[in-house]
Amino acid sequence: MLTEMGKKAKAAAIVLYNASSETKDLALTYAAEALMANQETILTANAEDVENGKASGLTNALIDRLTLTEERIKGIADGMLAVRDLPDPVGAVLDEFTHRNGMKIVKKAVPLGVIGVIFEARPNVSADSAALCLKSGNASILRGGKEAIKSNIAIVSLIRDAIEKAGLPRDCVQLIEDTTRQSSIDLMHLDGYIDLLIPRGGQGLIQAVKRESSVPVIETGAGTCHIYVAPSADLDMAANVIFNAKTSRPSVCNAVECILINSACAEEALPKIADKLRTKNVEMRGDSRTLKILPDAVPASDSDWGKEYDDYIIAIKVVDSLDEAIDHIRTYSTFHSESIITEDPEEAACFMNAIDCAAVYWNVSTRFTDGGEFGMGAEIGISTQKLHARGPLGLKQLCSEKYYIYGNGQVR
Amino acid sequence: MLTEMGKKAKAAAIVLYNASSETKDLALTYAAEALMANQETILTANAEDVENGKASGLTNALIDRLTLTEERIKGIADGMLAVRDLPDPVGAVLDEFTHRNGMKIVKKAVPLGVIGVIFEARPNVSADSAALCLKSGNASILRGGKEAIKSNIAIVSLIRDAIEKAGLPRDCVQLIEDTTRQSSIDLMHLDGYIDLLIPRGGQGLIQAVKRESSVPVIETGAGTCHIYVAPSADLDMAANVIFNAKTSRPSVCNAVECILINSACAEEALPKIADKLRTKNVEMRGDSRTLKILPDAVPASDSDWGKEYDDYIIAIKVVDSLDEAIDHIRTYSTFHSESIITEDPEEAACFMNAIDCAAVYWNVSTRFTDGGEFGMGAEIGISTQKLHARGPLGLKQLCSEKYYIYGNGQVR
Repeated sequence: MLTEMGKKAKAAAIVLYNASSETKDLALTYAAEALMANQETILTANAEDVENGKASGLTNALIDRLTLTEERIKGIADGMLAVRDLPDPVGAVLDEFTHRNGMKIVKKAVPLGVIGVIFEARPNVSADSAALCLKSGNASILRGGKEAIKSNIAIVSLIRDAIEKAGLPRDCVQLIEDTTRQSSIDLMHLDGYIDLLIPRGGQGLIQAVKRESSVPVIETGAGTCHIYVAPSADLDMAANVIFNAKTSRPSVCNAVECILINSACAEEALPKIADKLRTKNVEMRGDSRTLKILPDAVPASDSDWGKEYDDYIIAIKVVDSLDEAIDHIRTYSTFHSESIITEDPEEAACFMNAIDCAAVYWNVSTRFTDGGEFGMGAEIGISTQKLHARGPLGLKQLCSEKYYIYGNGQVR
Repeated sequence: MLTEMGKKAKAAAIVLYNASSETKDLALTYAAEALMANQETILTANAEDVENGKASGLTNALIDRLTLTEERIKGIADGMLAVRDLPDPVGAVLDEFTHRNGMKIVKKAVPLGVIGVIFEARPNVSADSAALCLKSGNASILRGGKEAIKSNIAIVSLIRDAIEKAGLPRDCVQLIEDTTRQSSIDLMHLDGYIDLLIPRGGQGLIQAVKRESSVPVIETGAGTCHIYVAPSADLDMAANVIFNAKTSRPSVCNAVECILINSACAEEALPKIADKLRTKNVEMRGDSRTLKILPDAVPASDSDWGKEYDDYIIAIKVVDSLDEAIDHIRTYSTFHSESIITEDPEEAACFMNAIDCAAVYWNVSTRFTDGGEFGMGAEIGISTQKLHARGPLGLKQLCSEKYYIYGNGQVR
């Protein structure tokens, strides 16, 4: 059933593959303008989604994610313009080599082709994904959650009109309007049409996509991040970094979930850390040695290690050495972001080399693993896998590469 | 059953991840020396394989691929030294960025971890793969075909001794000695232990690995390459390039399989091309328009388009336009290497931008898609997929990346 959509996407991708930066940017300008000029239409559609959501008993948190306002629509439009203003990744020369026989070999960035995006209740993700894919020269097929379907239809319809107005095929962006589970599964099996499928959402979604898909997938977002406090750590810095990494936005993947404290500084460090965490009512779940120092901590069970709370909860464990900290992290990490707080450069280097994850930090909060913070401007997720790209997936990571060889009759 | 091997590989990979270039290079030096010093042992083992192969009715071509000589062993040892002498890809700074808050973000190349390699009858592939993986800091698990098992055991055993002598864990390289089909399937499902699985061999092997594996795979090698001869082409150059691309080594993936000739120059071009191909008795399979010009050509059937002959056979089709050539290639290409022969730069650019494959050539033989020819020194295969890496897979492509963030207490 999605085959028709796949064919249309592929045809659009061929045009988009060689579209000029100017044309793509124009489409994004028109799209942002259309969103701003049609706020009423979007808000009306969104009100239906919100009403249906309330009727079906969505939590307040989900209703909040789902709800659009004039300000939020402006945010979405501004986001599209921000993507427009980033450098075009397509055509960038990645490598050059002149063969001794005189032919020139140039490796250039090229679009991947067709990108599928599966996401949940937030309607801004449709505009955001469409913009990132378009700017990187990729056609996109979007499959959002049923909660936001009316909003997504309104937004994507405006974007498609804008793309057409700029002279590109409107099928550069398509939305799957069928929000049954089957449409999602069909997308995961659209072999031959989808060059990359990106799940944007919670762990359940990501794991389901990874397990089920026969098209190439980039695994994103699982983040059980640790911070290890070494004996030589500046303890005020440690408390400050941990407080920030836990409480500045607990629901995101780069928030810290577990802290490991060296026993040599635990008695002094833990009360400082706990004092700050208590100001935000963070539930502390400690091992037996932590409980001796922090009587108000809850005993941690085995299931607390490696747990992604996404909430005001933190696991705490006292360890006796850097090696023990590394072993713990190797066992329970999701290989997203890990940090060490230490004044000892050698120890920092040892930790950073030993932990094989997307981002390793020395004396910094884990909260910085993010496309914007890493200078990429925008991102479509954080890759926690090792192939293709690791860490924030910006425009460059939505590209493949291609060798162009120029000669005058060379043979081998 | 392979889990034990997986665990050993993972433990070895942790050591190898941070091994110095000097240590890895020493291991490769010792390995090359050991192969040269133990030629007798290898030749004796190989003689057994050859005898078994003849008894089981292997073709002469396969027996030739399987057979080692003193000269071939020297070639294998020299290959290991050539890999040793390439720059170490690990630790290379791929990108750097200083955040406005003062923290420094450095993206570095890191090993992937554990690489599985499945290959067929050529015993040199075991040494070759082991060397490329070791140099790029990756532990390897090798699974070669049963035809070469005695030779592989002899070679890998010497390499493991050499690795240990250099101070690294001998499990940096492991060989699966069980050559039943099951061991191959087990390797394809060694989830959690294998970071990348690379099939090296024919289409059947590659497709089987791609279909069956639950671990990450890079698809390599399928090559149905085309050459399009445009109206403005230098016809002597066209004939020369086609002759080279077909006959210099017909069994490899970058050999040409099909030529497309514009009708405007077909009458003049085809006899020139055919004259050269006839000197090597290349069988020409043409469409009806080709047959009118080349009476000795065989009529092509539908199954000839898109066919990878790997032999002295070539398909020929007359087309009326660049667009028709592009359409044909888009339909039948395996997206490996495609070439255009033309004196018109605009037409060349149009062809090269329109065809989305690993390598596009202008006035050059397709035979150059190769790690050595592209300046990489060595390769483990040619990727025909779009994610991670495209084209020859050299040492850099056997690496992942990792962000190192250095700060002094930054929070977000």
